[in-house]
Amino acid sequence: MTDCVLAVDVGGTKLAAALVEPGGRIAAYERISTPQPPHADAETLWRTVLSLIDRLPAARLAGVGVGCGGPMSWPSGKVSPLNIPAWRGFPLRERLQDRYPDLPVRIHNDAVAMAVGEHWRGAGRGRGDMLGMVVSTGVGGGLILGGRLVDGVSGNAGHIGHVIVDHEGPPCECGGRGCLEAIARGPGLAAWAREQGWPGETGKDLATDAARGHPIAVRAMNRAGWALGVAIASATHLCDLEVVAIGGGLSQAGPLLFRPLEDTLRAHARMDFARQVRVVPAALGQMAGLIGAAAFILAEDRYWTAD
Amino acid sequence: MTDCVLAVDVGGTKLAAALVEPGGRIAAYERISTPQPPHADAETLWRTVLSLIDRLPAARLAGVGVGCGGPMSWPSGKVSPLNIPAWRGFPLRERLQDRYPDLPVRIHNDAVAMAVGEHWRGAGRGRGDMLGMVVSTGVGGGLILGGRLVDGVSGNAGHIGHVIVDHEGPPCECGGRGCLEAIARGPGLAAWAREQGWPGETGKDLATDAARGHPIAVRAMNRAGWALGVAIASATHLCDLEVVAIGGGLSQAGPLLFRPLEDTLRAHARMDFARQVRVVPAALGQMAGLIGAAAFILAEDRYWTAD
Repeated sequence: MTDCVLAVDVGGTKLAAALVEPGGRIAAYERISTPQPPHADAETLWRTVLSLIDRLPAARLAGVGVGCGGPMSWPSGKVSPLNIPAWRGFPLRERLQDRYPDLPVRIHNDAVAMAVGEHWRGAGRGRGDMLGMVVSTGVGGGLILGGRLVDGVSGNAGHIGHVIVDHEGPPCECGGRGCLEAIARGPGLAAWAREQGWPGETGKDLATDAARGHPIAVRAMNRAGWALGVAIASATHLCDLEVVAIGGGLSQAGPLLFRPLEDTLRAHARMDFARQVRVVPAALGQMAGLIGAAAFILAEDRYWTAD
Repeated sequence: MTDCVLAVDVGGTKLAAALVEPGGRIAAYERISTPQPPHADAETLWRTVLSLIDRLPAARLAGVGVGCGGPMSWPSGKVSPLNIPAWRGFPLRERLQDRYPDLPVRIHNDAVAMAVGEHWRGAGRGRGDMLGMVVSTGVGGGLILGGRLVDGVSGNAGHIGHVIVDHEGPPCECGGRGCLEAIARGPGLAAWAREQGWPGETGKDLATDAARGHPIAVRAMNRAGWALGVAIASATHLCDLEVVAIGGGLSQAGPLLFRPLEDTLRAHARMDFARQVRVVPAALGQMAGLIGAAAFILAEDRYWTAD
């Protein structure tokens, strides 16, 4: 068997690890809930990652690729995931490098890994210019232009969640105002719906209620679709995108989300070149991040520019 | 003497041509007003370009680089500049190639040429990730990421003028609404000021009056600075920019424009990485487009990706 890549996906809710074959197929997969405070200190969490990796079958490895919640210093891979308070400046890349001293170890933002996975083997395959988005508890993304991953000056390119869609909109956790994320993230959308009288709790409930025709829940999906449409129009104008792939929990809402999104996008993106952009659901589901993390090793010419 | 590049800048107001040395210095320069309708048909305009080129001293050439008002089909170089009605689908690249059959002939949007010039030899020199902007009758730009020009799927990347800053804002000539250009272009800003009771006519008058402290004119500059700040915050979040270089007539307003721009940008760009971006005036003035057009030939590894 040709050497696989060990891919790791570190999120606030779950940790996942996989062996990914050179062609992008997942040969083995393990997952576990992320230990939550107050039981999880930094080292407990690290040992949980190691035990997860140890559950995978033995294999000859070509390298280790990681997607991890941001922010992080990049490419040094000191991570401080918003949803994992136990890790603040945790040297994840260095720890993994110590454990795999002879292999390349590469790490990037989890939304970037998702976008790379979708470009390499998913909804953006073969396209030159793609924005990959995750719409869930937060709104993140990754940018592939000219067939290559764009990192930006500090590895933070792709933050579509902080494109401004309503300058008088709600405050955003980033400190700004009216960002796409402030409006379209699941908890933000649920809070907006509760203000209108909707009795539910989570973004997931909201999507379910919208599918059942609850009028406030439907309006909430319209609102998310509108915000996504404005942000995607801006991104298309700036980057001349061919395709936008949207994954994450909220994208499960299907036409309830994608129809108002398309309506808004088409109202704002009127120039010939901008009309060409296609917005599609992500194709790889939960596996996109692991496949993308593996691509930092397996397709490094396109997806890894650092050291 | 080492071979120069013949650089041509085609705009609605003036045509310019230069011989550019391999290091980026302009060795010779000629300009002429663009023939205006109804006297200028497509062929008259073409002959004017040729006669302008003929005024330059004879030189051995390494190639021909052109910046031309958009839109155009790219890289084929059929141009339909908004402000030059005589050229609709005019095969400018082909005509120049026929005249210089043994040389590379390359053409791009004039705002892209300006951004490339500023990156190669101006305000963005040595930076990896830069947005170059022209704020004038329109608002255009070009994007350099990872040290290389970003073209997008159809050569239209860099359209910062159509990033949406106020979704309920004024209609834009692109067919959308609330684009940066709809608010901050000189004529749009002058129209807004006249609605408020300002008695002047042009964007240039407006900048002059603002410098003299005319309150409506000052408010108009605040408005332009605000719109620029919102759009630059969005672009910085999406592309993780290091520097934004702003040229064009309105940028002459100096602190009257740059101060409200900075205030808005800093209010919206709060994450650590986004705070790092610097907004600076363009450094090469009117010559940026010619120097950038020459760079399509002289630094083709960074600035020319097509055929």
